[in-house]
Amino acid sequence: MHDIKNFIRDIPDFPKEGILFRDITPLLQDAAAFENSVNQLAGLLEGQDIDYLVGIESRGFIFASALSMKMQKGFITVRKPGKLPFTRIQESYDLEYGSDSLEIHDDSLKDGKNVIIVDDLLATGGTALATGNLIKQLNGNIVGYLFLIELTELEGAGKLGTENVWSLLKYND
Amino acid sequence: MHDIKNFIRDIPDFPKEGILFRDITPLLQDAAAFENSVNQLAGLLEGQDIDYLVGIESRGFIFASALSMKMQKGFITVRKPGKLPFTRIQESYDLEYGSDSLEIHDDSLKDGKNVIIVDDLLATGGTALATGNLIKQLNGNIVGYLFLIELTELEGAGKLGTENVWSLLKYND
Repeated sequence: MHDIKNFIRDIPDFPKEGILFRDITPLLQDAAAFENSVNQLAGLLEGQDIDYLVGIESRGFIFASALSMKMQKGFITVRKPGKLPFTRIQESYDLEYGSDSLEIHDDSLKDGKNVIIVDDLLATGGTALATGNLIKQLNGNIVGYLFLIELTELEGAGKLGTENVWSLLKYND
Repeated sequence: MHDIKNFIRDIPDFPKEGILFRDITPLLQDAAAFENSVNQLAGLLEGQDIDYLVGIESRGFIFASALSMKMQKGFITVRKPGKLPFTRIQESYDLEYGSDSLEIHDDSLKDGKNVIIVDDLLATGGTALATGNLIKQLNGNIVGYLFLIELTELEGAGKLGTENVWSLLKYND
């Protein structure tokens, strides 16, 4: 068994001073470790009734796509503004300075469909919460949120309004 | 057998007037059709000696990730500037107006490793060629280029400097 954390590289002061960035590219580059991480992520969802995995642009696409293949579920993309071509809805979320938005196609899912929201990283929870709000606008049922990495100190999980927040790797520094 | 083209939606005048955009989101949302497309893409690579799949941000991540899982190969990301945290190299490419750049971590692969460059769409070939140049700078061996969709009229394949340009769906209008 690989220890997945060994494949996560710490990069100090990225994207700016004082931030310790968790770089997942060494994990992705190692075929066995990547597959192992996806299998373990799928394991966290065992027993859940799921119709779709919702991936948040861009790194969320990587894990949502791999999990779609592994679990044979549909894959829905949530993207930055201006990227999705069909009719869509938008949610804004606050950044440290200013705000940003995410979009979803308004025909992405039917009422009551069960979704898991997937991203590589849970930090403050802003993008995940905005994605959850998009799913609610479409009358989807949020089964839970799934992350490769959770920065527990930032307490993002508490903002998501559900107990079902799963993460494979927790960091508290 | 699904006809994959039935899951590609035509969106006129996106991202601007006169462009017919091929929307892959209906394909992704259908678990069986998505899996089928990934299996067929993997089939196009049969018999090739491959170490890594290189995915181009953002939609290229979706197929490169799924293929990594399917083929048990490493996955390397090529990203827009400012996204990759470790030391990296850059290639620029021309757009209709101005230019843009792509980056790769400089420790992504060792000399002589065999890579397939993956994206959802081959149009004029600018981003694919820039990605190929990044791989060459790192002394990687480009086995070929793989796309879900090829817009044949734009003749991007001819710019890539190899016969090994594979695409699952060709459109000539």
